[in-house]
Amino acid sequence: MLHFPINEIKKWDRFYRTNFINSLSGFKSVSLIGTVNKNGQPNLAIFSNIVHIGADPALIGFINRPVEAAPHTLLNIQATGFYSINHIQQNFLQQAHQTSAKYDATVDEFVATGLTAIYEKHSTIPFVAESNIRYLLKLIEVVPIKHNNTFLVLGEVTDVYLTDNILKEDGFIEIEKAGSIASLGIDGYYKCEMIRRLKYAKVDK
Amino acid sequence: MLHFPINEIKKWDRFYRTNFINSLSGFKSVSLIGTVNKNGQPNLAIFSNIVHIGADPALIGFINRPVEAAPHTLLNIQATGFYSINHIQQNFLQQAHQTSAKYDATVDEFVATGLTAIYEKHSTIPFVAESNIRYLLKLIEVVPIKHNNTFLVLGEVTDVYLTDNILKEDGFIEIEKAGSIASLGIDGYYKCEMIRRLKYAKVDK
Repeated sequence: MLHFPINEIKKWDRFYRTNFINSLSGFKSVSLIGTVNKNGQPNLAIFSNIVHIGADPALIGFINRPVEAAPHTLLNIQATGFYSINHIQQNFLQQAHQTSAKYDATVDEFVATGLTAIYEKHSTIPFVAESNIRYLLKLIEVVPIKHNNTFLVLGEVTDVYLTDNILKEDGFIEIEKAGSIASLGIDGYYKCEMIRRLKYAKVDK
Repeated sequence: MLHFPINEIKKWDRFYRTNFINSLSGFKSVSLIGTVNKNGQPNLAIFSNIVHIGADPALIGFINRPVEAAPHTLLNIQATGFYSINHIQQNFLQQAHQTSAKYDATVDEFVATGLTAIYEKHSTIPFVAESNIRYLLKLIEVVPIKHNNTFLVLGEVTDVYLTDNILKEDGFIEIEKAGSIASLGIDGYYKCEMIRRLKYAKVDK
């Protein structure tokens, strides 16, 4: 095995270190987060650090970088209290990745990247029409992570939209059949294939 | 599209809802966390809600369920200040999943599941010898998530161990070449294949 102590890692070039540490934690859920500001101006941005927090209440979190580095999504969520999360498929991966460019707050990334905003009846928050799995969240709490000025943004699921034929009889969603992808590091994208589902583990097995 | 409002989801059977909400957030990083209590008793447990927090300092977090549901790993980390995270490969997936059984605190899951504990020179924390990618963390902070009594456990990477031939010239780690898998929901395991890496996105592209 190769061994890399942190004192060595700290001396590395910034981009090398970023690639390394971002890959180390493993495959990530990557999705597009759709928001509007208080004037209704849409914003769409790719996020890869989305994490399941709990099923009841249905809580999902994501990590937002320091506000000065990534302000629009977080400020919009705080202004309106709602946001959409939209899974990404390979057929619009390039456009999804393009939302990571540093567009001005006045730019609508749906227009800039060619993705289609769609609005459900009861909401002013844009969804990505191309996405086969999308859900709406209500902001619950922005938890500061003081050690590096990031935030855990915590939301409660209010509505889920799924394409047909991916929901199993026990509630499991076969997201790979909808084309949902995963990410690794800051720029790697992956398709995933099920190995298998395992039974609930018991001590006496 | 099928539409599921939260008021409907709340009425579902608990296991159906758990499968559904756990799948919704997407593919997850799944790994084994190795710890010891203050007497040196090893513990090993599978965690799937591991999240990249930042590259400099090198911070990685994981979500720990309420203490009464999952006490051993968190208490051990708080007692010693250190823990290992070990990627999972398909060849020991069954054993890794088996660590999720509710063993007593006195049971060493390495022994119970047949996985091999290995210790690096400078540390008393067990690693999984079978794992091709493993790293040691120092506890930084346990951030309470008050809304559902879970915790974001925040650690700083201190040492990284990698098998040969997976580290690219720019620092990206091709974890799929080491056999690392992803998970979905509470019991689905996946192998992942790279689609591609995309260039840094610029506004004028």
